[in-house]
Amino acid sequence: MKHKILLKESDIPRQWYNLAADLPTPMLPPLGPDGKPVTPDMLAPVFPMNLIEQEVSQERWIDIPEEILNILYRWRPAPLRRAIYLEKHLKTPARIYYKDESTSPPGSHKPNTAVAQAWYNKEFGIKRLTTETGAGQWGSALSFACALLGLECKVFMVRISFDQKPFRKIMMQVWGGNCVASPSNETNAGRKVLAEMPDTPGSLGIAISEAIEQAVTDPSGQTRYSLGSVLNHVMLHQTIIGLEAKKQLESVGEKLPDVVIGCAGGGSNFAGLSFPFTLDKINGADITIIPTEPTACPTLTRAPFHYDFGDTACTTPLLAMHTLGHAFIPPPIHAGGLRYHGMAPLVCQCVIEGLHEPRSYHQNQCYESALLWAKTEGTICAPETSHAIAAAIDEAEKAREEGKEKVILMNYSGHGLMDLTGYDAFMSGKLTDYELPQEELSKFTKDLDSLPPAEERKTGKW
Amino acid sequence: MKHKILLKESDIPRQWYNLAADLPTPMLPPLGPDGKPVTPDMLAPVFPMNLIEQEVSQERWIDIPEEILNILYRWRPAPLRRAIYLEKHLKTPARIYYKDESTSPPGSHKPNTAVAQAWYNKEFGIKRLTTETGAGQWGSALSFACALLGLECKVFMVRISFDQKPFRKIMMQVWGGNCVASPSNETNAGRKVLAEMPDTPGSLGIAISEAIEQAVTDPSGQTRYSLGSVLNHVMLHQTIIGLEAKKQLESVGEKLPDVVIGCAGGGSNFAGLSFPFTLDKINGADITIIPTEPTACPTLTRAPFHYDFGDTACTTPLLAMHTLGHAFIPPPIHAGGLRYHGMAPLVCQCVIEGLHEPRSYHQNQCYESALLWAKTEGTICAPETSHAIAAAIDEAEKAREEGKEKVILMNYSGHGLMDLTGYDAFMSGKLTDYELPQEELSKFTKDLDSLPPAEERKTGKW
Repeated sequence: MKHKILLKESDIPRQWYNLAADLPTPMLPPLGPDGKPVTPDMLAPVFPMNLIEQEVSQERWIDIPEEILNILYRWRPAPLRRAIYLEKHLKTPARIYYKDESTSPPGSHKPNTAVAQAWYNKEFGIKRLTTETGAGQWGSALSFACALLGLECKVFMVRISFDQKPFRKIMMQVWGGNCVASPSNETNAGRKVLAEMPDTPGSLGIAISEAIEQAVTDPSGQTRYSLGSVLNHVMLHQTIIGLEAKKQLESVGEKLPDVVIGCAGGGSNFAGLSFPFTLDKINGADITIIPTEPTACPTLTRAPFHYDFGDTACTTPLLAMHTLGHAFIPPPIHAGGLRYHGMAPLVCQCVIEGLHEPRSYHQNQCYESALLWAKTEGTICAPETSHAIAAAIDEAEKAREEGKEKVILMNYSGHGLMDLTGYDAFMSGKLTDYELPQEELSKFTKDLDSLPPAEERKTGKW
Repeated sequence: MKHKILLKESDIPRQWYNLAADLPTPMLPPLGPDGKPVTPDMLAPVFPMNLIEQEVSQERWIDIPEEILNILYRWRPAPLRRAIYLEKHLKTPARIYYKDESTSPPGSHKPNTAVAQAWYNKEFGIKRLTTETGAGQWGSALSFACALLGLECKVFMVRISFDQKPFRKIMMQVWGGNCVASPSNETNAGRKVLAEMPDTPGSLGIAISEAIEQAVTDPSGQTRYSLGSVLNHVMLHQTIIGLEAKKQLESVGEKLPDVVIGCAGGGSNFAGLSFPFTLDKINGADITIIPTEPTACPTLTRAPFHYDFGDTACTTPLLAMHTLGHAFIPPPIHAGGLRYHGMAPLVCQCVIEGLHEPRSYHQNQCYESALLWAKTEGTICAPETSHAIAAAIDEAEKAREEGKEKVILMNYSGHGLMDLTGYDAFMSGKLTDYELPQEELSKFTKDLDSLPPAEERKTGKW
């Protein structure tokens, strides 16, 4: 029984899969401040045109440039592993496979799109990328990609993380990234906040505003902004995960999985694994596809589908998505990557169609699952990833109760070596679970009343 | 041109290689406090008899039990990678291959022996292992191994690291390890030190004494002590590294390497990669085998070959090795794993024979090499590993100057994700280089005068 299922470099997928081409109902368009659909030209100061074309593309398959593959080969194809030690512990007839995205140098799936975005920007003549980062996962992935491609990288890191998580900042610096605490004195947006609240811990919303401002105001025109999740082209670049997994499952004689699981914050690692299998489901396959999220930030499980801003500062176009409201601030939970108020519109449309069946988990159950994982499979997962493991264990136990030989496929989105304080808090009994009260949720979603509604369109087939 | 050279699980080596069987001159035996050779029985309270047998074995090949392989499969066979991006940057005709030992769950080569030692102890009926750890690399590897095998693990961690490096401690706890600061109140050795120096930062020597005391005084007889380097059986377990690398080089049509490089603290990762190739050299192959060490702790390059204690507290048998003196304390350098005063006797004998050609490096050059590595190959190496990278770059540049197509093989012993403060110090210009003055060295080696001398025996063939 093989633990690792490897794919040859020569078998790496050479095209990304674009789910937008196959969605049973077309996506609702992003809207500008005037309530009218955003045109590609309006996005040109923010993103290079080659990525804007991917963002709006309806092509099913998009070629991966050879130069991008040459960079991805540093860690891709990523191993698919079978969790034989966990299976044995659970005494389950299920076969649990997990795609190991923790093997990238920054330790997560994020570089799959960071490398692609940096390459397309360079191709377009851009010299410098700006971005924001919360816990630092995305900022380090983009710094990594820029280092390999010779681009400058500027990261606005939320002040409280900048102070509390110095290691991610050092990591960015090792790759040549210029990481500053946000709010900073380098932008109008930052200076304005600092003048009003000099001691603010910062927020992702402010950091996004600073990064976009610095990109669009560069007089040389050679700076653009880069986003690590939510957008269609980001989901596209991540589909290499699921496409590889598919080949790997086939190579060991497995047909399609019965269950596909990934944690979802902005949606990118979940989409990356699940979209190629979502196509199979659209085509009639019987697959349960589960995005998992924290009960404390229940975007897919409890939030309305509505047009909303992507950032707290209300500077982005309006996106049709499940949203807790752009002003939503979740209580402190340790999965920093799962604290976002919105969700990738492509994933939201799948949820509305019934193609994806979201589920929420309390963080204590997730850490319990992570500890069981460490003592069986042996590795220490990211707090975000533990939300996928919790669901995989649930499904494996269900298979045992039903006596069914199910195939469960999970995305192991990243390692937790930079996030050990969360484990410490859990093991010391300091973590509390939090279920967002309805009145609290309503308080934040009330802001949506002033924004255009979004129609929940579905075929009712799933 | 392939970046990753993978080996199938079914091609994993099934025997370890024991260099002691092929050494041109036999090893000098360990001596007891009376100056007479130590017998296996004398070691029985400290180590289980099956490991003592390996320690003194003259068998060339020793079978790896199937149960150990079943655990190693979690990350082995480890990838051999070709540093094509670094080669390109250096414009070298050399082909640089590196064995990636950073892919183990604790992030280094250490689990290769931790798993083997835990398994043999369990087989012998032992329920609990004790050990010491400095920076935490070894303590986390043994905690990991014990978690998978259901043994208790007690780690005495040097107080200053315990306080300054909380993440390694949390890592051990995730795997169920019981990590306490040393000196502790749990042993006579610890209590004695605390009574005299309540604010001591601790030392590896004290931690070793505590770990051994707790093993030998357990009235149940079910506790033993475990050591992560220096001893013959530890080197043995690490040879899987070089044996895998050999198969991998062959699989891409390479004959023997021209140069083999590994950093050496106690010697285990270097020995693991180099011993199988040392046999080729004994048999006539033209290979340059280079252990690298810090200029600040120049055991192989400047210290005398002499009988000395393995620990500062003088509790271990006397080993014939290159030693800076058991009381030697190197100045602060960031490669915690390369601060040991002694060296594996097997490696020392190879140096005396001329089979291995040690070299020392300043830490600033090592960190410069590490940054170049991060920006080309993409990964962040351990500070220890950077000493191997510095030498690989030197050799690749030499090959360019000579216009020779050399094959360089290096051990990438671990990642540096838990050691980013050293990078920070380097990038901020805060690291100083240190060359041990001769009078300082003499001060520490003077202690050796009261111990038995060791005869430097060599054939003069190399």
